Amino acid sequence: METAEIIAIGSELLTPHRVDSNSLYLTGQLNSIGIEVDLKVVAGDQETRLEQVARSAVERSPLVIATGGLGPTEDDITRKVFARVLRRQMVLQHDILQTIRDRFRSRGLEMPGNNARQALVPVGARILDNRLGTAPGLWLEKGEGEVVIILLPGVPSEMKAIFEESCLPLLSQRSGGFHLFTRVLRSTGMTESQLDEQIAPIYMPYKNPVTTILSGRGEIQVHLTGRAKSRQEAESLVHEVADRIQVKLGDFIFSTGDQSLEQVVGEFLLRKKETLAVAESCTGGLIAERITRVPGSSRYFMGGVTCYSNPSKVEFTGMPPLLLEMSGAVSAEVAKRLAEGIRDRMGASIGLGVTGVAGPSGGSREKPVGLVHLALAKGDQVEHRECRFSGDRERIRFWASQTALDMVRRRLL
Amino acid sequence: METAEIIAIGSELLTPHRVDSNSLYLTGQLNSIGIEVDLKVVAGDQETRLEQVARSAVERSPLVIATGGLGPTEDDITRKVFARVLRRQMVLQHDILQTIRDRFRSRGLEMPGNNARQALVPVGARILDNRLGTAPGLWLEKGEGEVVIILLPGVPSEMKAIFEESCLPLLSQRSGGFHLFTRVLRSTGMTESQLDEQIAPIYMPYKNPVTTILSGRGEIQVHLTGRAKSRQEAESLVHEVADRIQVKLGDFIFSTGDQSLEQVVGEFLLRKKETLAVAESCTGGLIAERITRVPGSSRYFMGGVTCYSNPSKVEFTGMPPLLLEMSGAVSAEVAKRLAEGIRDRMGASIGLGVTGVAGPSGGSREKPVGLVHLALAKGDQVEHRECRFSGDRERIRFWASQTALDMVRRRLL
Repeated sequence: METAEIIAIGSELLTPHRVDSNSLYLTGQLNSIGIEVDLKVVAGDQETRLEQVARSAVERSPLVIATGGLGPTEDDITRKVFARVLRRQMVLQHDILQTIRDRFRSRGLEMPGNNARQALVPVGARILDNRLGTAPGLWLEKGEGEVVIILLPGVPSEMKAIFEESCLPLLSQRSGGFHLFTRVLRSTGMTESQLDEQIAPIYMPYKNPVTTILSGRGEIQVHLTGRAKSRQEAESLVHEVADRIQVKLGDFIFSTGDQSLEQVVGEFLLRKKETLAVAESCTGGLIAERITRVPGSSRYFMGGVTCYSNPSKVEFTGMPPLLLEMSGAVSAEVAKRLAEGIRDRMGASIGLGVTGVAGPSGGSREKPVGLVHLALAKGDQVEHRECRFSGDRERIRFWASQTALDMVRRRLL
Repeated sequence: METAEIIAIGSELLTPHRVDSNSLYLTGQLNSIGIEVDLKVVAGDQETRLEQVARSAVERSPLVIATGGLGPTEDDITRKVFARVLRRQMVLQHDILQTIRDRFRSRGLEMPGNNARQALVPVGARILDNRLGTAPGLWLEKGEGEVVIILLPGVPSEMKAIFEESCLPLLSQRSGGFHLFTRVLRSTGMTESQLDEQIAPIYMPYKNPVTTILSGRGEIQVHLTGRAKSRQEAESLVHEVADRIQVKLGDFIFSTGDQSLEQVVGEFLLRKKETLAVAESCTGGLIAERITRVPGSSRYFMGGVTCYSNPSKVEFTGMPPLLLEMSGAVSAEVAKRLAEGIRDRMGASIGLGVTGVAGPSGGSREKPVGLVHLALAKGDQVEHRECRFSGDRERIRFWASQTALDMVRRRLL
């Protein structure tokens, strides 16, 4: 069994407002035991439609995982539809009924009549306990186990608990003991094509691990996934290639795991016993906000100012008014003075200053939308970078914050 | 034609990292002309799998929209697969080839040989111009037009432009002139069940419009969708119910459209000729960042400080050190003093002060994680609110920022 199909059931998933995200979690879990997802379907609570979908899935896929539609109402048709597809009768499972009743009783409530429906399951189903809710998951097999069908609740916490506790161990055995291992290298400061040019000669000769390049907000990620009979083997396949890519990309890589740039910067500041303060204009507080997302950031972040008006630049960073007038608010000089001023006023060891034109209006020929000046003050040195970012206001602000954080990271390398 | 099936094609959509979001946009557009989406499929670039999916779709759905897989590489198999399903030959369209060549030439480049593949289309396809990229969209029909198949690029901007310019008008005609009209009421300050209790008696008697309640970050949205033969009629169905809900919910509603809370607050400030400054502790710059997301916010936002350390509270808002010591950094008195201090120092007419425990650590019995004090200073009045938010750091910070912005909105009503 090497591939799976995931069916998300719920009419709210067919509106413009909700996306099926359960399948992302399930995909990650399945991948880790060597199973790939090769089809995903989103269906509503219309019975004939769902029956078609369920029938095709059971015919074409060795593993089918469906989420949602196990609730107590009329609209919850998942159990019934799969029973019909598998030609199984529905039976009332008294032990499930008792468990549901006990759950209500423990909260001082009587079980509503509706909920009895959740104890009605196809004959031969294995019951997957749900610690967190009333609807148990179900494990069904077709024939001699050629097809496995797993029905899970749509509530993410319940779905995850049941999958990890009751499904993963069994599936792992059945998948022939294959393991996938993924390592992610996150880089910033290079374009996707620059990066690919550098590393393609390294990863191209390998079919295992598989290398995927994904561009995210302000970063390019290199995903390496190895597949082998043991996790150790999968890991070593990945590390062999990943290590060479890491050497090649050097300090463009800011993280080799889940860590965000603001987490990495925080760790560097802590480790080097430095403290940071920021003075932001065009980023409007985004840099401070990103830094303080990290729990414990008060140990190295002294604070920041968002000086959106010229008087506030003067008042809070000691900017000479004449400098603002001579150079203009968006200039290298002002960025540098912001960095030095805020560092001194906050009593930090490193200061960042950012000023630019985030748009959509406010640009001019000499100072177009996307122009950003960044400065970092440390000791008696002040570094400066001038950047021209493209895109909308949100993108320009994010890139400015990303570049500012990366200046701190590189300064502390 | 009242229902549609959407197929998203791309192997990256079958990884744990990417979700198909094009279908959300398409669903919204289709709904607006009375077409509902009743099935969504995500498939990779494996040919036999995609062919099965395409074949089932063409057999069961009157309208099939596929996105992705129209690029110039070997993996881009959408054109080929649908041609096979519809039993059409592929022909090289010289005008498409010329358009692609011209597009490269205008950027001073030669067209790579690969791209010629994008001019190879099924016989009888109607070409949908792509102003923004090289791959045109394709409109195919089966039989006498019983089934319409639309192939669009996966790049969101290209997909949207082609859909709106070339598909929407034609589909609107074919959908029998049905129109859907949706109005969204956005509220904050009430729980979902409180809100539903208030408005259920109003919307329950109606099947048209359909009322859906969605809870989002820091807000509850009420979506009302009416369906009728004309847009006017659909609108008036919706307004009849929406107006009564709006009266019932009163000032809990902050927006009756797409406007975010920060946009609404910005408009109020502009209209009332007030200016704002903020002093944030636990929200770490998030309030300033949200306010400055709005283009033109420099007209009413003077600036903010993120005072993460006690000395910075003293230095930037004139906080008496004794007050900090006596009341503690997380207290009503400190929030009030932050609001007044920042207003005066920034020369604004309204000041906001926020201090709290965002967690996960730093909580105590008297001051647990989630405790936040908020204050608003205007004229010689200082309002104060004490809140206890639940959830993780990110949720507590967001709710604190939402409550602070809502205090400004209510003060200016």
